[in-house]
Amino acid sequence: MVRTPQQFKEMQNIDVLTEHRITKIDPEAKKIEVVNLSKSETQWVSYDKLIIATGARSRRLNLPGSNAMNIFTLKDLQDGIRIKNYIDEKRPKRVSVLGGGFIGLEMCEAFRSRDIETFLFCRRDLPVGNLEREVSERILKELQESGIHFLPNQEPIAFHLNGQGEVTSVETTKGEYPTDMVLMAIGVVPNVEIAQEAGIELGKTGAIRTDFSQKTNLKDVYTAGDCCEVFNLISQDWVYTPLGDIANKQGRVAGENAAGGKATFHGVVGSAAFKVFELEVAFTGLGFQVAKRYGFDVDSQMIEAESKVGYMPGSKRMLIKLIFDRRNGRLLGAQMAGQEGVARRINALAVALHQKMTIDEISKLDFAYAPPFSAPLDPILIAAEQAGKKVHQGRTNK
Amino acid sequence: MVRTPQQFKEMQNIDVLTEHRITKIDPEAKKIEVVNLSKSETQWVSYDKLIIATGARSRRLNLPGSNAMNIFTLKDLQDGIRIKNYIDEKRPKRVSVLGGGFIGLEMCEAFRSRDIETFLFCRRDLPVGNLEREVSERILKELQESGIHFLPNQEPIAFHLNGQGEVTSVETTKGEYPTDMVLMAIGVVPNVEIAQEAGIELGKTGAIRTDFSQKTNLKDVYTAGDCCEVFNLISQDWVYTPLGDIANKQGRVAGENAAGGKATFHGVVGSAAFKVFELEVAFTGLGFQVAKRYGFDVDSQMIEAESKVGYMPGSKRMLIKLIFDRRNGRLLGAQMAGQEGVARRINALAVALHQKMTIDEISKLDFAYAPPFSAPLDPILIAAEQAGKKVHQGRTNK
Repeated sequence: MVRTPQQFKEMQNIDVLTEHRITKIDPEAKKIEVVNLSKSETQWVSYDKLIIATGARSRRLNLPGSNAMNIFTLKDLQDGIRIKNYIDEKRPKRVSVLGGGFIGLEMCEAFRSRDIETFLFCRRDLPVGNLEREVSERILKELQESGIHFLPNQEPIAFHLNGQGEVTSVETTKGEYPTDMVLMAIGVVPNVEIAQEAGIELGKTGAIRTDFSQKTNLKDVYTAGDCCEVFNLISQDWVYTPLGDIANKQGRVAGENAAGGKATFHGVVGSAAFKVFELEVAFTGLGFQVAKRYGFDVDSQMIEAESKVGYMPGSKRMLIKLIFDRRNGRLLGAQMAGQEGVARRINALAVALHQKMTIDEISKLDFAYAPPFSAPLDPILIAAEQAGKKVHQGRTNK
Repeated sequence: MVRTPQQFKEMQNIDVLTEHRITKIDPEAKKIEVVNLSKSETQWVSYDKLIIATGARSRRLNLPGSNAMNIFTLKDLQDGIRIKNYIDEKRPKRVSVLGGGFIGLEMCEAFRSRDIETFLFCRRDLPVGNLEREVSERILKELQESGIHFLPNQEPIAFHLNGQGEVTSVETTKGEYPTDMVLMAIGVVPNVEIAQEAGIELGKTGAIRTDFSQKTNLKDVYTAGDCCEVFNLISQDWVYTPLGDIANKQGRVAGENAAGGKATFHGVVGSAAFKVFELEVAFTGLGFQVAKRYGFDVDSQMIEAESKVGYMPGSKRMLIKLIFDRRNGRLLGAQMAGQEGVARRINALAVALHQKMTIDEISKLDFAYAPPFSAPLDPILIAAEQAGKKVHQGRTNK
């Protein structure tokens, strides 16, 4: 835990009530119904300002056998401890991971590091199906080289249990696979029930609707984190992007405004990164298909380049794909994958997205060059220069 | 060598004439005087367009004993081979490095890796004296922990030689130091003599004056690289910044324009990085004093932070200093030092400088977060948030 209730009290005079569950909000009376779980007592408490930061919970498949004791999800520390304890006690030999997103991939690595044979089931033909194909293919290569069994294009339809209520096999649309343990890593759903019941509006994503001040539609009620939406500055649309750094920024703004301040949070460009085995993956902005759906005239440019000057030890091939609007050359998104120097490199392009920069402007950026860190022309600059040719050609052809 | 003359010919039909020296330019007749060094022949060759890319040479101190055979400079591959051969043959036990810039520091590391006792002499009290004090102090700590003898506040006044013409000691303003070898790493001077003689204008820095098309004042004569100036977008002034990545970009523009194109290079923000032992150092934009000299109302903010989430293996403390204008919060420069995750992190701030972003805008950037690469709030965002408080306070006080 980052901070204990005692530290909150001592450092900032904040009362943190653990083991208390809010069960109802009465926005007219400005009161909340609070259950003290340790004493099983319920009382109504009044508020001046309320911040709803109820987060999200793991999505679970509702299939025959879904409630088996060795089917896990992973959202918080307790989930992690449960998984760890089960492995320590039962020494599973085979685990089935359902879902090829960040959590699924990171757990593939964790299971392999404990020498458990790991089967990754995906609905689509590639892991992290919302990334560009080339990036997902690179991820698949890394998974397979690390000994993960990848089982694409199939959906689980049932779990078969033994007499002790443990899953012994996963049945999918393609077959039946013996297993000693299952991790469901198929995303999260926002915890909006109490808010909704109190008349707080949800957005079209199903998460709580908010604005640049983190207000809800109810007076004196704010929201922040994985329970609410966030504005995407590229698509200019409210989206559901439950990530820790966004929650952190929204929380600061909600807190400041609830305390009488005037903070704003204008939104995100859609940056994220993860590491799976030796591979770093990072992306920002919109993917090709999403950009197209939002009406951009999309083109893209993929290059492979060395992460630093080729003669330096530890230089690795990385791929960069830039997604841009061919009408004006504006950058719309970028994705990268490689074993070195990827994750922190994406942030320069995140800034470029915030600033609506064009491919041409990006190709002329003054980056810090030294052989241990980059080639004289950074891979980003090379990719932008290549992309620029397509933009110019497009103009000439008209 | 990156490419041979044969490769240039085969791949791009470019004739590269090695061992040919240009000794004169006649811009009226559009001719150059060329000496074929291998045949000792001189001839005049006509040109349609001329690109002057004569580069720079190492600056040398003109002191008693300066021409000793074991005083080296390091600018090109030949210099490097000479130093390597000397070490292999003579096995020096002690080397004196004059000058605490990038080259001096990188060579300190190279000498130490060959177990040579290394003495670093600096005119100022800290190495890389043009960086912020806190950064230079961090560099000094790294040098001392790596066994470098640092000798500040002294200038060499003479070299004492033995009968074989070899330096045996360096005499400085503070004393005499026995040595087996000397490296002069006190910067470079642009090679402008032939250009100047032909009537090509120099800027106030002493390097060739140019414009955003890489033209000189003479018709059909272009310039690029370490022999010419470059525009600094923050100070809005022409400066002398001889760095490989800038030369590369200028060369592309000069070449395109000489061939009839219309390329432009609008300048740099002043980004650079280097590595010395385990320390990464990176900076962009203006330092505090330089920004002040250019008339900005300068303030700064220094923070120390972890390079990734504290519980991740390999996380290291890094320092970030932001330099900004307190009137409007505009970022003017940034400097960083640390053992991990520094060099590539600076580029996001280079983009911010190109875009004239404010501290407030920077504090709200959407960076890619994952524990192996950063804290939920990247050190850059934390530094910007801290700096923002100073900007707001400044406004409130008025």
